[in-house]
Amino acid sequence: VPVAQLADAPFLRACRGEPAAHKAVWFMRQAGRALPEYRALREKAGMFEMIRTPELAVEATLQPVRRYGVDAAILFSDIVVPVEALGIGIELKPGVGPVIDQPFRSAADLRRLRPLEPEQDIPYVIETVRALAAELDVPLIGFAGAPFTVASYLVEGGPSRDHARTKSLMHDEPETWRALLDALADISLAALLAQVAAGASAVQLFDSWAGALTPADYREFVLPASARIFAGLADLGVPRIHFGVATGELLGLMAEAGADVVGVDWRVPLADARRRVPDGVALQGNLDPSICLASWPVVAAEATKVLASNGGHPGHVFNLGHGVLPDTDPDTLTRLVELVHASQ
Amino acid sequence: VPVAQLADAPFLRACRGEPAAHKAVWFMRQAGRALPEYRALREKAGMFEMIRTPELAVEATLQPVRRYGVDAAILFSDIVVPVEALGIGIELKPGVGPVIDQPFRSAADLRRLRPLEPEQDIPYVIETVRALAAELDVPLIGFAGAPFTVASYLVEGGPSRDHARTKSLMHDEPETWRALLDALADISLAALLAQVAAGASAVQLFDSWAGALTPADYREFVLPASARIFAGLADLGVPRIHFGVATGELLGLMAEAGADVVGVDWRVPLADARRRVPDGVALQGNLDPSICLASWPVVAAEATKVLASNGGHPGHVFNLGHGVLPDTDPDTLTRLVELVHASQ
Repeated sequence: VPVAQLADAPFLRACRGEPAAHKAVWFMRQAGRALPEYRALREKAGMFEMIRTPELAVEATLQPVRRYGVDAAILFSDIVVPVEALGIGIELKPGVGPVIDQPFRSAADLRRLRPLEPEQDIPYVIETVRALAAELDVPLIGFAGAPFTVASYLVEGGPSRDHARTKSLMHDEPETWRALLDALADISLAALLAQVAAGASAVQLFDSWAGALTPADYREFVLPASARIFAGLADLGVPRIHFGVATGELLGLMAEAGADVVGVDWRVPLADARRRVPDGVALQGNLDPSICLASWPVVAAEATKVLASNGGHPGHVFNLGHGVLPDTDPDTLTRLVELVHASQ
Repeated sequence: VPVAQLADAPFLRACRGEPAAHKAVWFMRQAGRALPEYRALREKAGMFEMIRTPELAVEATLQPVRRYGVDAAILFSDIVVPVEALGIGIELKPGVGPVIDQPFRSAADLRRLRPLEPEQDIPYVIETVRALAAELDVPLIGFAGAPFTVASYLVEGGPSRDHARTKSLMHDEPETWRALLDALADISLAALLAQVAAGASAVQLFDSWAGALTPADYREFVLPASARIFAGLADLGVPRIHFGVATGELLGLMAEAGADVVGVDWRVPLADARRRVPDGVALQGNLDPSICLASWPVVAAEATKVLASNGGHPGHVFNLGHGVLPDTDPDTLTRLVELVHASQ
């Protein structure tokens, strides 16, 4: 579907704070292990192989749109895809996350990164986005990792409970840190620009672990690099979504970085979150993904509370507060989409 | 030292919101792997064996007081000690946490808990506290797990990223949930009453994972049980500290449960935390423990920011926002105590 025909899609209208024909909903990690058809795909290929094979990445992206009837697709990807394409050795361990062969530990490691040239480095991503844009009749959300969260994986060597090495590098070697974050910002920006050029109608910047930071550290050490990405996208007219968990104290700063839509996890009621961002910034969230493992009456009651907390504000995209858990019953998500669509 | 002589100890004065001779500081998990003398002790005995051997538990409790010169000792313990003493099979896996042999899954599991009789079930804890009270010249903080966090271990079977099973039980079987939390509240209350009777001058209730909950769920499903514990301690005149991480949205509710002191993690500046609790409630925290792995000038600068954010309020106990990380250099903590003591 040509991008122009999607301009009034409920998801894009909600991102812009405009009333829409129905309330928009999609789910982070909607393409994933909760779906039997996804598990069948994954029996044939690993994560990176799927991402590098447009036919498989397209299919994984489309599956939840077909199954759930969500109002947006999100590119099937991982936040480490661009740096892996630049030659950083990374394994995606199931149930763990990205594990880095040789973690970044000093200024010398900066030489291992160079500018991303999407046509050469990630042609399969561009091909996947082009195929999806031609096929989909809902908007496609482009996907990139935010500099802090990608840096945390590179520095820690994998998922981390406390991000202690990352924080030490940030404070003890602020020049190295800034150079690392600026390099990662340029890489993510290039990846997102290529995705929008290929047909993505919105972008989401995943700063999943930013909530581990104090507001002061976020402002000083992280916000400038993320702002650089959002500024580089400003002229494209696509909604820019900014997501993290445990970011209750950072919501205002994440908007200040240049987001049009700020993701909110379940810890902060939407009515409170609304007071922490400027007027005109939309919200996305915020049902606790764990709730989706409870019985349907509980899910319905909790989803209704989320809708009530939003109070009918048009600038709200219904979503979970974090990704779909693998044990989720897909039928629960189908019913959740129906509930949200019937809610206005 | 007799309890009466400790009444003006800086730690207790700060808990009561009273000006003191110097600013009080201690560190959560100050008895732990950051100390070489602790690692030497642990070569001889496992965690439960140490906790059950008063001589070893006393020594582990005293080590950080000697080494760092902190203003309070905290009983060497674990939040699962009382339920383990009641016969629940639990292994404390290093680097992982408590792992439960047979997790709680239904109402039938409630029969596995009975009221705690401290003199019979945990005589070694009482003996340890008595010995510490005789030996210490700073206040001893009693230790117990809060019902939600203990329940999460019992239901999940171990540490959990999302507490999904716990949240499902809470919502799908609210009567079973309430019975479980009330039973755990009574067990923790009995353990704390015994510790105070044996000489503890304050208590800390650890609800480490409560920050995984929405404020609405915390209020409905958790607060009543924790309030039951605090109410049972109200007449003893010992400060009641209430701790959790990622609890920015819960600070007011955690005070409402009956705490005299609310723990604050590093995500919320103390000045903001102060506005979320009633006047007269003291705060404890909130230096990011990861910062203690950076160089001393960074630690000093960040500790100074914490002190500045408190703004000289007498109702503040300096601490980390969570436990000391094992890789922390003990000299950093010694210098941190000196810095805090010199700060007023």
